[in-house]
Amino acid sequence: MTSKLLNLVLALAVVILAIELTIAKKETAAQPQATDAATALDVIAQRTSVRAYDDRPVETEKVEALLRAAMAAPTARDSRPWAFVVVNDRAKLKAIADTLRGSRMAAKAQLAIVVCGDMSKALEGSGRDFWIQDASAATENLLLAATAQGLGAVWTGVYPGADRVKVCSEILNLPQHIIPLCIVPVGYPAGDVTPKDKWDSSRIHYNHW
Amino acid sequence: MTSKLLNLVLALAVVILAIELTIAKKETAAQPQATDAATALDVIAQRTSVRAYDDRPVETEKVEALLRAAMAAPTARDSRPWAFVVVNDRAKLKAIADTLRGSRMAAKAQLAIVVCGDMSKALEGSGRDFWIQDASAATENLLLAATAQGLGAVWTGVYPGADRVKVCSEILNLPQHIIPLCIVPVGYPAGDVTPKDKWDSSRIHYNHW
Repeated sequence: MTSKLLNLVLALAVVILAIELTIAKKETAAQPQATDAATALDVIAQRTSVRAYDDRPVETEKVEALLRAAMAAPTARDSRPWAFVVVNDRAKLKAIADTLRGSRMAAKAQLAIVVCGDMSKALEGSGRDFWIQDASAATENLLLAATAQGLGAVWTGVYPGADRVKVCSEILNLPQHIIPLCIVPVGYPAGDVTPKDKWDSSRIHYNHW
Repeated sequence: MTSKLLNLVLALAVVILAIELTIAKKETAAQPQATDAATALDVIAQRTSVRAYDDRPVETEKVEALLRAAMAAPTARDSRPWAFVVVNDRAKLKAIADTLRGSRMAAKAQLAIVVCGDMSKALEGSGRDFWIQDASAATENLLLAATAQGLGAVWTGVYPGADRVKVCSEILNLPQHIIPLCIVPVGYPAGDVTPKDKWDSSRIHYNHW
């Protein structure tokens, strides 16, 4: 009698566990699909300007991932009018920080990536200035790739400030056809990385103003 | 005897199922962490210009997610100098497609988002043109949010083409202080969405040119 009751309880337990397992496995299989959107949208929402970094070195593979992301951005008529200068020399970082006030956090960064326009690759004539939009899209990808990898970064403007372009070009020995758009100091964040909520539905119009 | 054997088999089955369930649940819990970086980097790598769309309507929540992503982008001194016109009126989409050759795929798109600069919010003086970089970063976020959600989109340029700016402003009835930067047709992709591999290590320099 006891044995039969035990059998019944065990059989019931097996059935329940089997059902639970099936559900759990289905959830596991479904997850990549379900979280794909959420994860990428989260990274976009979590990205924020990080201006303080700790001393941890940034892995070479992570730096390459930043540059890969940057080059994956769209460019006008696929012109790819960009170049990137990775600055990890302490003296150069200090020179940038000392001479370009807006980029002074470069002094404490592990590295900075200078996103440039390459005028030998930019469209000709009236399309030339699309390099600004192309290099900006590349910069945004770079910032998101930093966030995705647990790094902190900040976009500090150079172009179109003529003085800043001149100073930056001198420090990096840039040729005439290479225009620095911005300097992005990078490192592991020290302190708060809470993003701002900038959502503002009043900025949205439908079909006409 | 049979009953005892059955009991033993059942007990064993319960134990195995319990272990499997624990493993499955752990995998489910661990997944988001492990894929965070990979997923966001994947979305960046997978984004490509999608110019053909099928007839499926695009969900309102997905359109809002596109706009949220756009507004999450960084802007110079947090000026947020942007505005967005969501065009889903068939006649307006046709007018865009007919008059702006570069945006002709808008005719078949479910909607188009026109990313604009708001000169009443842009920085003053020499910083004014940062709106171009800011609106470009917003556009890139919007494109990535489309990819993340299984949508297809393409950045079609308006500014700085004076003619295109004029035509687009007329169609959307934009006031003087609103400058359309680009038009992004959006829909569910029809056909191939294989991204280009644009990686080119020759574009990377270290510390100086």
